[in-house]
Amino acid sequence: MVVRKLFTEQLNDLHQHLLEMGMLVNEAIFKAMKSLSERDSKLADQVIAEDKAINNMELSLEQGSFELIALQQPVGTDLRKIVTVLKASSDLERMGDHAVSIAKATIRLGDSKVLKPISEIPEMGEIVKSMLHDVLNAYLAGDAVAAREIAARDNEVDKLHRVVSRKCIEQMQENPDHVEEISHLLLVAQNLERIGDYITNISEWIVYLDSGEIEELNN
Amino acid sequence: MVVRKLFTEQLNDLHQHLLEMGMLVNEAIFKAMKSLSERDSKLADQVIAEDKAINNMELSLEQGSFELIALQQPVGTDLRKIVTVLKASSDLERMGDHAVSIAKATIRLGDSKVLKPISEIPEMGEIVKSMLHDVLNAYLAGDAVAAREIAARDNEVDKLHRVVSRKCIEQMQENPDHVEEISHLLLVAQNLERIGDYITNISEWIVYLDSGEIEELNN
Repeated sequence: MVVRKLFTEQLNDLHQHLLEMGMLVNEAIFKAMKSLSERDSKLADQVIAEDKAINNMELSLEQGSFELIALQQPVGTDLRKIVTVLKASSDLERMGDHAVSIAKATIRLGDSKVLKPISEIPEMGEIVKSMLHDVLNAYLAGDAVAAREIAARDNEVDKLHRVVSRKCIEQMQENPDHVEEISHLLLVAQNLERIGDYITNISEWIVYLDSGEIEELNN
Repeated sequence: MVVRKLFTEQLNDLHQHLLEMGMLVNEAIFKAMKSLSERDSKLADQVIAEDKAINNMELSLEQGSFELIALQQPVGTDLRKIVTVLKASSDLERMGDHAVSIAKATIRLGDSKVLKPISEIPEMGEIVKSMLHDVLNAYLAGDAVAAREIAARDNEVDKLHRVVSRKCIEQMQENPDHVEEISHLLLVAQNLERIGDYITNISEWIVYLDSGEIEELNN
């Protein structure tokens, strides 16, 4: 069936586009974390500037989805596949916003030296980057088993978030003069924790596509 | 045209459903802020429990949107109206998550007395509640002028957020023993600021429905 094939091809284009958007977001997270660890305000500015491109991709994915719905008038599973592209693109766009928040924290930190670097913060960054990379592949493959495994890794992110919060609070108690710098790190950790939550959302969409059921993963 | 009328009626049902979801979210924000100001952990638990209902509404709005697309196979503006319901429902669901974060902060605070209450925090809560109330009406009315005005009010929220952050940092510097409590307030303020951002997103969808152009409001 030619039309059917056309639908599959067009959906594949949407998925490729979503994958590109995801790679941009992952790059934004990478650069934001790098700007933080190296106190590189120029790189942070770049993350902020490049977020516009991510926002535009959400819009163009939306337009592509419109066209596909209008042309193919899909129902049932096909329609659900398109709508989950729209949902996943919103999640990616929000992750980009959190990368921007991290970049802004870098700029606020300037070159103030934080006393004891908190190793769990870059660790959180590494985990969410690998989770995002894997969830995009699981999405394209429609791999619900992988999606559940990825969502489970968010527990580690949440655990590290608690450790970082604890350490930040202790450092602030011991060093009142550094409260401001440390408060930025507290917010960075929360941004990373939220990115993990959005990745878990995408995992839930993958499971939903597979089963037709929305399940809260990692709760 | 009967079919056309049917579409309008069904879209209206979706919009009513979205309005109900928005009212639940507004109630969640109200209860979360009340639980914080009164250190009412029971009320906070209720906010957390009731978030499930909000999440379910996002799903049922999605299913309603699917059915409408499948039955009516709308194109152009009609399709865009349905997809913005999906987008707005995601924004509302995220706001509900932020209300939950505020409720969790209440629980972590327990009955610890914060030294100087920071009046700008309830003030932020009041503003976002009125913004959410108004943006829902603007959405139903398709009132792009109101949407722009509502998005502009987010500047006030951002300004108060900066004031609260500053005050929290000063209090932490002066009272190392209270750093932990105050850090929860810092995160509450960030949650309120994010809720304002989501309301701005909805304003952008309203403008988009009106003009077909995505415009970044309040940037």
